[in-house]
Amino acid sequence: MSILIMSDTIESTQSKCMKESDRSGAFDHLFTATVQDQIGSTGYGDWRLVSASDAVSLGYGFPYPSSLPSDDLVTVTEAVLADEGEHVLQYGGGSYTEQLTDFLVERAQSSDIDCDPSNILLTNGGTRAIDVVCRAFLEPSDSLIVEGPTFMGAISVFRNHGVEIDSFDVDTDGLDVDAVAEELRTREREGREIPKLLYTIPNFQNPTGVTLSLDRRNRLLELADEYDFVLIEDDAYGDLRYTEHELPTLKALDDTGRVVRIGTFSKTIAPGVRTGWIIANNEIVEALRKLNAGGTNTFTRSLVAHYCTTGKLDEHIEELRDVYEERRDRILHALETHMPPAAEWTEPEGGFFVWVTLPIHIDTEEMLHDAAENGVTYLPGSMFFPTDEGSNSLRLSFSYVPLDELERGIAALGRTVRERL
Amino acid sequence: MSILIMSDTIESTQSKCMKESDRSGAFDHLFTATVQDQIGSTGYGDWRLVSASDAVSLGYGFPYPSSLPSDDLVTVTEAVLADEGEHVLQYGGGSYTEQLTDFLVERAQSSDIDCDPSNILLTNGGTRAIDVVCRAFLEPSDSLIVEGPTFMGAISVFRNHGVEIDSFDVDTDGLDVDAVAEELRTREREGREIPKLLYTIPNFQNPTGVTLSLDRRNRLLELADEYDFVLIEDDAYGDLRYTEHELPTLKALDDTGRVVRIGTFSKTIAPGVRTGWIIANNEIVEALRKLNAGGTNTFTRSLVAHYCTTGKLDEHIEELRDVYEERRDRILHALETHMPPAAEWTEPEGGFFVWVTLPIHIDTEEMLHDAAENGVTYLPGSMFFPTDEGSNSLRLSFSYVPLDELERGIAALGRTVRERL
Repeated sequence: MSILIMSDTIESTQSKCMKESDRSGAFDHLFTATVQDQIGSTGYGDWRLVSASDAVSLGYGFPYPSSLPSDDLVTVTEAVLADEGEHVLQYGGGSYTEQLTDFLVERAQSSDIDCDPSNILLTNGGTRAIDVVCRAFLEPSDSLIVEGPTFMGAISVFRNHGVEIDSFDVDTDGLDVDAVAEELRTREREGREIPKLLYTIPNFQNPTGVTLSLDRRNRLLELADEYDFVLIEDDAYGDLRYTEHELPTLKALDDTGRVVRIGTFSKTIAPGVRTGWIIANNEIVEALRKLNAGGTNTFTRSLVAHYCTTGKLDEHIEELRDVYEERRDRILHALETHMPPAAEWTEPEGGFFVWVTLPIHIDTEEMLHDAAENGVTYLPGSMFFPTDEGSNSLRLSFSYVPLDELERGIAALGRTVRERL
Repeated sequence: MSILIMSDTIESTQSKCMKESDRSGAFDHLFTATVQDQIGSTGYGDWRLVSASDAVSLGYGFPYPSSLPSDDLVTVTEAVLADEGEHVLQYGGGSYTEQLTDFLVERAQSSDIDCDPSNILLTNGGTRAIDVVCRAFLEPSDSLIVEGPTFMGAISVFRNHGVEIDSFDVDTDGLDVDAVAEELRTREREGREIPKLLYTIPNFQNPTGVTLSLDRRNRLLELADEYDFVLIEDDAYGDLRYTEHELPTLKALDDTGRVVRIGTFSKTIAPGVRTGWIIANNEIVEALRKLNAGGTNTFTRSLVAHYCTTGKLDEHIEELRDVYEERRDRILHALETHMPPAAEWTEPEGGFFVWVTLPIHIDTEEMLHDAAENGVTYLPGSMFFPTDEGSNSLRLSFSYVPLDELERGIAALGRTVRERL
């Protein structure tokens, strides 16, 4: 992943990173080989601060600020501390852990996932869940398969495990499963190692917004069983669906126990509560639990439990669907209005993101400077690939900025693109 | 580590672990070699539920329940959400992150530690901090040195990295640094690999309560520099000192940047807020930041920041010192009164723990059943060694149970030991 071109108007943590010339490198030889390989590269979270004053920030994949349930969380904090203050603040936590686990079990069962509490592991958010799963399965000699493009936080986690990352194209039906099948056949024929894991975001994928079709879901499960690998289903956005048409999750279709399903409350309650979960085969959960060093935050876990079990979560999800559907409609309309015919984009049925593909000669990293000057920022597509791809694409997030700024941002983007045609 | 002998009166998560015969092992071959080695072993946190009804629980190394600042945390939550609710609940957090970092910098500087914000990494508690440090330095072929006995959570983390763990004796002045020096000399002479890390808890060590002498601190730093390894200083209990005599921390004595210092608010605010930190050389911090997947909990981090910067932490620490000093005095007096002459124990100047050594023929794992029947539980010493040692020792925690139960617990322990003499 190359470094973003920054200007004075664009702030970045790049400036916080030490310049190569300032490093003494005194301890580099003590780091693991994987860590040594990562020296000087951008790290997890470094992309967050790409912004420019006065520009509409379509880069941030953050929940809409006014939708964060601050007031409810004050009430919930009071209730939880009054009720079980000692346990909530102590090691281990109190009954809220069990309540939250039971809530997740019921919720999973209502989506046709066969599970009980032994199938659930609570984690400090979704990204930490991905990290723990990798710890259980990946050694530096292993490889894994991802969608290209995919969630950059996951790429960062995979890189930290020192493994080979192979990415496969995504189209309007999600991951190109036929291409994956072809690669697996080739590897088997040539006696090469089969990947240990395949990481997919089946619903409203980050960054493309597309959804994996039912047929491809079934094919993926067949492949996982045939070639003996584990499927990580990251369903961070699944609850934020703006249409009626709901597909079964990979975990619901899973007969063999090969699917490790990851969920999070970051999009449906708040990122700040850092509470996610894993649903998996109980032997896998038992291994993951040992690797989940330091456990989870008992305090916020208790708040989340109270929020969920008192019915607030379901109400809030209903509201969020309306909030984000309106924004999705607005950004798609603005794209129709302002983008030149040479641009293409996805039409998400849920989630936060639209993926834009521009003519091949346009480099969206390089274009970001002018875009910011024109009044919009986005994330360049190259940031979402493990390899050097995606230079003519970009991710727009319609979740974060005020509704009435979306059109101004897209108008600025359209202007910026037209200047380059 | 062998499994505790449980009776009907002693509850344990052993019962939650699957029996070997129930395991299908269907995915074992996909796990890393390290994870495969750990199948069937006890995991982090499994020891927590060793308890018996009616018995005085001297096993739990938990803060005193009534000392947990529940009321203050309600006030702080209201203040923080009213002030910066959006940022506190969002990715990245708000200004509280910077406030907490600055607070930690000032505090470190006032203890003669040379540092600035680039030397600080916030983590989800102290154990997670240990895990992240291991991720940066340890590969399965590496080894590390620990005190024997040491914090069982750390042993669990080290095991998860698949490394060789060598433990060295602890006496009333802490780790036997001469023995470490001798081992390092031998390894160098024989051309064997030098350990990458040495993990020490210099103040009021868990589980022995002893403090590493100044002379040994200086010797350790010399050894680290001579043999090129990194020192992990876990100072979880350093603030809870009951005497005036304060020794400089390893990090304050560190001229070379080899000390990675770990702190936590688990003992001084509450375990439930899961907030810890690392102070280290900025290049090491940069590497650790990339490995700290999912970041820290912005919500509880903000509460902690507000609690600290409004002066509540310092006041609370003063109160805690009095609370725990009284308990320390009470348990030592009870030991004098009730234990037979053949028993020995440490006299901690701070922290939560007393370490008891019994005649060599007494097996404290086996004795636990009778102790529970007699009215007291403790943690057997063997749980704190990476190898098969410590069978005639045990850890008592004076932090958790009500003050007036301490004597009853120790009387029951004395009775149980005398039955075996």
